[in-house]
Amino acid sequence: MRLCTIGVDVGGTNIKLGLVASSGRIIAKTNLVTKTYDHHPRHLIDALVAAIRALIQENGKTTKDIAGIGIGLPGLVDVSKGNVIFMPNVPGWKNIPLRKIIQSKLKLPVFIDNDVNLVALGEWKLGAGKGYKNLVCITLGTGVGGGLVLNGELYRGEGFVAGEIGHIPLNEQGPACNCGGMGCFERYVGNRILMDKAAGIFGKENIRPQDVFALANRGNALAVRFWRETATHIGNALVGVINLLNPRLVIIGGGIANNYKFMEKTIQKVIRRRAMKVQKNMVRIVRARLGDEAGILGAHILVKESILGRY
Amino acid sequence: MRLCTIGVDVGGTNIKLGLVASSGRIIAKTNLVTKTYDHHPRHLIDALVAAIRALIQENGKTTKDIAGIGIGLPGLVDVSKGNVIFMPNVPGWKNIPLRKIIQSKLKLPVFIDNDVNLVALGEWKLGAGKGYKNLVCITLGTGVGGGLVLNGELYRGEGFVAGEIGHIPLNEQGPACNCGGMGCFERYVGNRILMDKAAGIFGKENIRPQDVFALANRGNALAVRFWRETATHIGNALVGVINLLNPRLVIIGGGIANNYKFMEKTIQKVIRRRAMKVQKNMVRIVRARLGDEAGILGAHILVKESILGRY
Repeated sequence: MRLCTIGVDVGGTNIKLGLVASSGRIIAKTNLVTKTYDHHPRHLIDALVAAIRALIQENGKTTKDIAGIGIGLPGLVDVSKGNVIFMPNVPGWKNIPLRKIIQSKLKLPVFIDNDVNLVALGEWKLGAGKGYKNLVCITLGTGVGGGLVLNGELYRGEGFVAGEIGHIPLNEQGPACNCGGMGCFERYVGNRILMDKAAGIFGKENIRPQDVFALANRGNALAVRFWRETATHIGNALVGVINLLNPRLVIIGGGIANNYKFMEKTIQKVIRRRAMKVQKNMVRIVRARLGDEAGILGAHILVKESILGRY
Repeated sequence: MRLCTIGVDVGGTNIKLGLVASSGRIIAKTNLVTKTYDHHPRHLIDALVAAIRALIQENGKTTKDIAGIGIGLPGLVDVSKGNVIFMPNVPGWKNIPLRKIIQSKLKLPVFIDNDVNLVALGEWKLGAGKGYKNLVCITLGTGVGGGLVLNGELYRGEGFVAGEIGHIPLNEQGPACNCGGMGCFERYVGNRILMDKAAGIFGKENIRPQDVFALANRGNALAVRFWRETATHIGNALVGVINLLNPRLVIIGGGIANNYKFMEKTIQKVIRRRAMKVQKNMVRIVRARLGDEAGILGAHILVKESILGRY
């Protein structure tokens, strides 16, 4: 009986791989540094295949113990064909039939999806969203992403790009965003934007969100205010999403969510004040539970559910 | 064989009833004036029952020819229980078990839903959205409503109130909205807002959107600009919805859509400029096709699909 899966979470910086038991327990993990392999997609694919083989063998398994491989990627993925159409932060990836290539090398079923979709899938089935039918998962990092579980299904949209919460405009005349839009939510709370803002407020270069978090922790009023303003933008964006989608749960994840403590009250207050009555009375806002492992676990769920025929 | 349904579209002003053939052809229609019956829910219910009976008999049918009755209502509906929880513009309606009451009086299956959901359902199955799997239907009137078809299903949300496109904020510091929010989309393009704005521009009271439409038709520059500004707000709201939901189609309906001619170019331009690449390249924006009959036809579809077990 094939009990395990391999979950892979490809990021712009690191690639995380996990050998996952059927229960969702991670048996072993390993890492690759993305940059090392970014000369050509072939290099990254070869490294992935080698790392997967090693993960299986070093843990006393064979491919017979593995139900399949799930891979999350930071970009545009054609889930049904198994192709990576484009990755903005990894050079050279355009229309790569990743599923087919890895399947033929490892002789195992492979399933691929967008990384944020897999975070949502992981949190839904194994994390903060267990048992819910309608939820929104938002990841706050360099980019602001989102995954939607609606009517008890992951909703990917017509072209697999639904969930772009970071590119809902917060202000019609707001600052220009890389995506071509104006006043996008990400333009107010993305990591780089927050670093620039912090540099201005605290008068030092390269001050990171976690530094402002540490300052806030020591009671620095400017730092507390910095997080309150950030939380107000997050709350305002969520008001639109909550009014539109009437979810039962909003899960907040990503690096910035480590500062949730300084934002929680404000986010809740904005939603209580501004969202519609029925919607706000039934929605819960919680922090993600799976942390760094959400991508691996979501990839594990993708394999399980794909093989069970749910996706 | 029961071929027909009765579709009922309850509005704040009028109630439209239709006898609908299985094909979706409306065989006969009738109307009630809502206000006449607003002293007590019982009066409206009795009038509805009488009108339904008359519609059946006057067209040479008996209840044996009727598969069921579908009713759309402008308010909060518990679709699964068949209860009207609240109607903001019809006094006295609070927690009324409408389905049960009408079923017991007419001995026919009854299904009820929110009116905008039924407009979306009608347009999806019989109108502009035929054959689509992911679409957003927006109704521009006194209020701005929306219905969502996602993954080939009507998406109603956890508490049956999803689709409130009118209450997505367009500006964080925008004008206060009745819903408690700030800068809601409806606050820029709702009928009353547009009338106030037109009164200011043209210096007369009670100038209606259709009057400004007539002026624009005669080439009045202020009127053309009025519609261009309205269209810009519509486009900006749609950018957020399109980025988030990645639909294949957006259907624009409601009274204001009669002025679509003066808004189409601007709406398209805003979306081309501001929406994300993959999303905007696959989305079509079209005008609703069913006009006044969308609610009746949506109610007809609700009956058909409910009896077939799809909802």
